[in-house]
Amino acid sequence: MNDPQPLPFARRMDNFRASRIREILKSTVRPDMISFAGGLPNPRYLPVEEVTLAAGRALASSGRALLQYSVSEGLPELRAWISERCRIRYGISVGPEDILITNGSQQALDLIGKVFLDPGDPLYIEKPSYLGAIQSFACYEPNFRGVPLRNGGVDPDILEREIRAHGPGLFYCVPNFQNPAGSTYSFALRERIARLARDCGILPVEDDPYGEIRFEGEDQPPLRALFDDTILLGSFSKIVAPGLRIGWVSASPPVMRKLIAAKQAADLHSNVLAQQILIEYLRAGELDAQIARLREAYRRNRDLMVRALEQDLPEIRFSIPEGGMFLWCELPAGLSAEDFSRRALEAGVAVVPGSAFFVDGGGDKSYTADRYIRLNFSNATTEEIETGITRLGRILNRMRSEGKGRNHENRKSQVLHL
Amino acid sequence: MNDPQPLPFARRMDNFRASRIREILKSTVRPDMISFAGGLPNPRYLPVEEVTLAAGRALASSGRALLQYSVSEGLPELRAWISERCRIRYGISVGPEDILITNGSQQALDLIGKVFLDPGDPLYIEKPSYLGAIQSFACYEPNFRGVPLRNGGVDPDILEREIRAHGPGLFYCVPNFQNPAGSTYSFALRERIARLARDCGILPVEDDPYGEIRFEGEDQPPLRALFDDTILLGSFSKIVAPGLRIGWVSASPPVMRKLIAAKQAADLHSNVLAQQILIEYLRAGELDAQIARLREAYRRNRDLMVRALEQDLPEIRFSIPEGGMFLWCELPAGLSAEDFSRRALEAGVAVVPGSAFFVDGGGDKSYTADRYIRLNFSNATTEEIETGITRLGRILNRMRSEGKGRNHENRKSQVLHL
Repeated sequence: MNDPQPLPFARRMDNFRASRIREILKSTVRPDMISFAGGLPNPRYLPVEEVTLAAGRALASSGRALLQYSVSEGLPELRAWISERCRIRYGISVGPEDILITNGSQQALDLIGKVFLDPGDPLYIEKPSYLGAIQSFACYEPNFRGVPLRNGGVDPDILEREIRAHGPGLFYCVPNFQNPAGSTYSFALRERIARLARDCGILPVEDDPYGEIRFEGEDQPPLRALFDDTILLGSFSKIVAPGLRIGWVSASPPVMRKLIAAKQAADLHSNVLAQQILIEYLRAGELDAQIARLREAYRRNRDLMVRALEQDLPEIRFSIPEGGMFLWCELPAGLSAEDFSRRALEAGVAVVPGSAFFVDGGGDKSYTADRYIRLNFSNATTEEIETGITRLGRILNRMRSEGKGRNHENRKSQVLHL
Repeated sequence: MNDPQPLPFARRMDNFRASRIREILKSTVRPDMISFAGGLPNPRYLPVEEVTLAAGRALASSGRALLQYSVSEGLPELRAWISERCRIRYGISVGPEDILITNGSQQALDLIGKVFLDPGDPLYIEKPSYLGAIQSFACYEPNFRGVPLRNGGVDPDILEREIRAHGPGLFYCVPNFQNPAGSTYSFALRERIARLARDCGILPVEDDPYGEIRFEGEDQPPLRALFDDTILLGSFSKIVAPGLRIGWVSASPPVMRKLIAAKQAADLHSNVLAQQILIEYLRAGELDAQIARLREAYRRNRDLMVRALEQDLPEIRFSIPEGGMFLWCELPAGLSAEDFSRRALEAGVAVVPGSAFFVDGGGDKSYTADRYIRLNFSNATTEEIETGITRLGRILNRMRSEGKGRNHENRKSQVLHL
């Protein structure tokens, strides 16, 4: 036998690990396991019948073209539909030629990293942030500059200070119903970010997978409406079906040219059959009714989880998101969220400890990562929410009875201001 | 208005361009254009009916699961099918757990680049090589070490010399019916490569999209059968349908773990609907009949194109591939393939000039890139092949009548030994 050779892995793989959430999800196959861990749409509302009909129409009308190689940019009809949606929903002018179809918006993140990030480049990112974005960007070895969320969005003063210290670069953000924190940028904050982009040369990457799933309050304009060069990401995963793997990215023409070249190199083009099925689904005019159903169902789930938390875990703090899929909870000081999550898993409830969402492990004293857990409320039944939160309450009580954790300084406010 | 800021593109984008072939293909929308440019399967043989039935079965049996998020590795049934196929076809033991489903094998190339290539790492690659691989790997800024093809495969002496000069690294190759050159490695050459892998620490990346499409001669064992750590890539694009975007990669467990982490970061997982449709298609047992049809049709097309070339362009040299989709032609010395291709496009025939396939522009004197053109024979009708080659013959005659090009040194042999 040959001597084993050391595998010549690239340096970027040193810091690279499989997703914490996907590892947790693997343990959720236990039959009595209740999962608040993933960011999955509720399977009950997946439009199986409509998609089945759409697939039939797509294959009948253009089967041969759907099985052949296609264009890297994506099918023109789908790009035109997205362009029109941007105009109607947000009043922004994004031409079909400014849109690239990707395998979920996750791929857009990877392409953006590839096109923009040299090792050591500053990358401004919310703290906490979407784990998948951290993973994608980490491959390109940027200098992650985490900027904490405060009072409904990124702290613009800290962001400005960081930019002045580290120079121009990308600023990645999820301004609507953020994952994991559930926070939403005010109009004033969006204007401030646009000014920072103009004045300091940062390029906002605006990821908006949840924007359509608003329960209450008013839609805010996308950053793209306030700063033209903003790279805007959208997705059909949360409003139609993640299994189709269809997202999109829109950017200015010079950026678009690079993104398309990167897409070609990455996988030639996205699945054409799924694109045409989506076109047929959208043409049938079912989307707005589907979104209305999701809003209603997820709002109900959020309210149910909020009430259950207030009843069974009165000592934790959380903010109430105006939409999306997540509640971000702060445990009483002195309790470890890692410990809590481990015990929860043993008790049959999967939750994600907050440290997974911090680029730097949450070293910032004012924002200690190990005090947070993320709870998903979209992908659970009424019964699962009630039973699951009751189990979590028992765990918190047990940890407190072991003498762990201090009371919140101000018992009157149990609201987490993010 | 704001001052335009310079866009902070990554250094890797400096050398990065959109695919030459995709640019040529865009010009083939002209109605009378005959395309020998792409590497497209013949649309006539795309199994539209079978896939339509398979889609119906897939959605009826597991529609809800197909629309939800899924595992990064790919559907277990599909991985099991590929594992079994490897055993039956090649006698190699590749477990389902050693297989990752990708968006076409193009994505596997990107993931391999991401996992292995630091800037400046040596990457040994056939000269000429698959353009999409050059593009994928170029993103990771390796030191491309092109090794010429000679007598049916890579020149092993030059490869060994290069490895001894530049150290261990990946060796990317297409041992069966190579794209663009059509060449196939002999058994002795495969053994020699396996020895080099063992002795010099190179890691072969064996890309085999065409292996099933053999017209004559005997199957050769994959490098993977001769050297265990070989990374093996397969695809359903050439034998079922490229629009499904389903390829796969198999590697040793430590490599597989990194590839899966890279896949998660790249796009979470491949399209589940397409995977399940493919499973249903494969279960119906139609694949071998489909492959037999393709072999017969492409062999017929190859023979037709060979006869037409011998008749209309007797002055060019080419090798006759034992399978696959491409003829690689050498123009008489002194003629520019770029010039020839440009004139061909004007005359309504799309071909790809050879320089597109050289990492270094073909500087090697003995292998001047600008003397080659690649002709695809799979994606054309009988009439298109006859008309297209006649047009090419006229162009060559015109170029010769302008006094360009010298005769081949040895007029007796018009065979190109690759």
